[in-house]
Amino acid sequence: MPTPRPVLAIHGGAGTIRREAMTPEKEAQYHAGLRDALSAGYAVLARGGQALDAVVEAVKSLEDNPLFNAGRGAVFNAAGGQEMDAAVMDGRDRRAGAVAGIFGPRHPVLAARAVMERSDHVLLAGAGAQQFCREIGLEHRGPEWFRTDQRWQALQDELERRRSGAADDGDEARRHGTVGAVALDAKGHLAAATSTGGMTAKAVGRVGDSPVFGSGTWADDRTCAVSATGHGELFIRYAVAHEIDARMRWGRQSLAEAAEAIVAEIAPVGGSGGLIAVDGLGNVALPFNSSGMYRGIADAEGLRTGIYAGPLVGAGPDSRRHGT
Amino acid sequence: MPTPRPVLAIHGGAGTIRREAMTPEKEAQYHAGLRDALSAGYAVLARGGQALDAVVEAVKSLEDNPLFNAGRGAVFNAAGGQEMDAAVMDGRDRRAGAVAGIFGPRHPVLAARAVMERSDHVLLAGAGAQQFCREIGLEHRGPEWFRTDQRWQALQDELERRRSGAADDGDEARRHGTVGAVALDAKGHLAAATSTGGMTAKAVGRVGDSPVFGSGTWADDRTCAVSATGHGELFIRYAVAHEIDARMRWGRQSLAEAAEAIVAEIAPVGGSGGLIAVDGLGNVALPFNSSGMYRGIADAEGLRTGIYAGPLVGAGPDSRRHGT
Repeated sequence: MPTPRPVLAIHGGAGTIRREAMTPEKEAQYHAGLRDALSAGYAVLARGGQALDAVVEAVKSLEDNPLFNAGRGAVFNAAGGQEMDAAVMDGRDRRAGAVAGIFGPRHPVLAARAVMERSDHVLLAGAGAQQFCREIGLEHRGPEWFRTDQRWQALQDELERRRSGAADDGDEARRHGTVGAVALDAKGHLAAATSTGGMTAKAVGRVGDSPVFGSGTWADDRTCAVSATGHGELFIRYAVAHEIDARMRWGRQSLAEAAEAIVAEIAPVGGSGGLIAVDGLGNVALPFNSSGMYRGIADAEGLRTGIYAGPLVGAGPDSRRHGT
Repeated sequence: MPTPRPVLAIHGGAGTIRREAMTPEKEAQYHAGLRDALSAGYAVLARGGQALDAVVEAVKSLEDNPLFNAGRGAVFNAAGGQEMDAAVMDGRDRRAGAVAGIFGPRHPVLAARAVMERSDHVLLAGAGAQQFCREIGLEHRGPEWFRTDQRWQALQDELERRRSGAADDGDEARRHGTVGAVALDAKGHLAAATSTGGMTAKAVGRVGDSPVFGSGTWADDRTCAVSATGHGELFIRYAVAHEIDARMRWGRQSLAEAAEAIVAEIAPVGGSGGLIAVDGLGNVALPFNSSGMYRGIADAEGLRTGIYAGPLVGAGPDSRRHGT
């Protein structure tokens, strides 16, 4: 069997800014942020590193970027707080770690990884998760690091909408921010990571699909690595990530068939969003049923990124190969 | 298509008392507790009620019984607190609700149901979940209701073992308590519910598989309803409940084949435990790889219960039919 060609795919959420509200400057910032994350993650793969390290590096970059709803720039919940969820999964043995409802660690994805590597558990939530993060000495930041005026205003707008009784405008940018990464390394191993601030004005304590293994995050060397973004409640009810795995193992579907089918299946029942997935051959699928999904791919041919439907843009002669 | 014959199956956890430590009196108490829960749940089905109501009634009964690790009699975490998780799922449309890390509601399963029916979310954790339970007026109880000397002593024993550096004795009774129910109603609908206090001396904030849909709890009218009990971390990494669903849909396996296969698969990697499952034809599977699993079945023929390997005991001419 030939040595796999490493590949990294990332998403910055299916909650893209409406096309009519997007400016060229803003669009360039998003592409630049995606490229930064791809560069950080792919550097690991290019030097022969592990898929797990690559997805963590990519997600750390997205967490530090206030444009994306994870870490710095996370959205606010109904009580004006920020509660973050994150997960990592290693396809070699399906070891996994996740946190839910934390605030303080600069990189929630590192908290998730620490749960996997330094605890007996897979998922820690709330005050106990925070205590764990402090005890192991994760880098913390104060509220001023995480807060952005844009997310605060989005909360005020949503609370005002609820007070006024106005209809939900279905704004995906308010609802669906998440970041994630999936990778195949040169040894043929897969990994996935997901991190999110959740939904603007979510109930305190709400946990979405990101830290629910099999829903928002999954990785198994036998099949695929998946990170999802979208209406988390629906993604949980359809076990979206594990459904792709199951269709590949038991239904003999290709990665693209499985990933596209489940994203299409959940669209009519309110499951707006999308996902990124990679299999052991390096095939990548980036399906979404929303108006856009911040996304990108890095491989030996370069970096390619996209926001709305259509081919990815960037370096490399075949930037259309991995289109949506 | 003929009218389905309703059936209810329950478990009181795979963490059974070692056979050599079980007394006839204790054994009779467990059988009685299981029969109480079966009676409560099956009464709903017998009068033409819904599977969802039946599993909730059965779990409420088990939560009130201090013999089982859920609600009253829940185990203590490493900090001497009790944190409970619960989940319900309705096979009609896979609506789902769960809570993690709560203390106070007499019946955590009702908190899970309230998340499903009275919130926009699927999973609430920690302080936010507690706040939700208070706001909606769920019946609460104080610490004296939930505490039992036996569980408190189990915590002291485990903490002492850790201090002394003694090897883990692998006592399943300390590790694997959970209760759950699955049902098929006369309309052909399926439902599942699970409730637990988790593992003795677990980390504060630890969430097991019970409220992770696709791992410890799943229900879909197309395939099956499942409630699991065992080493939750492993059950999450194998997406045990959704794996049974997937094998039935995509692998054309029967309920028994799928359920027995996954329970066998996780045994050698540390995934001790078991599960209960029912399909749309009323087939029931109760596989476990631990030394026992408190379990029972109720249908038109009566109630049958079991603890260790071997046929169930109770009313009805075919009490062996649904053996393990």
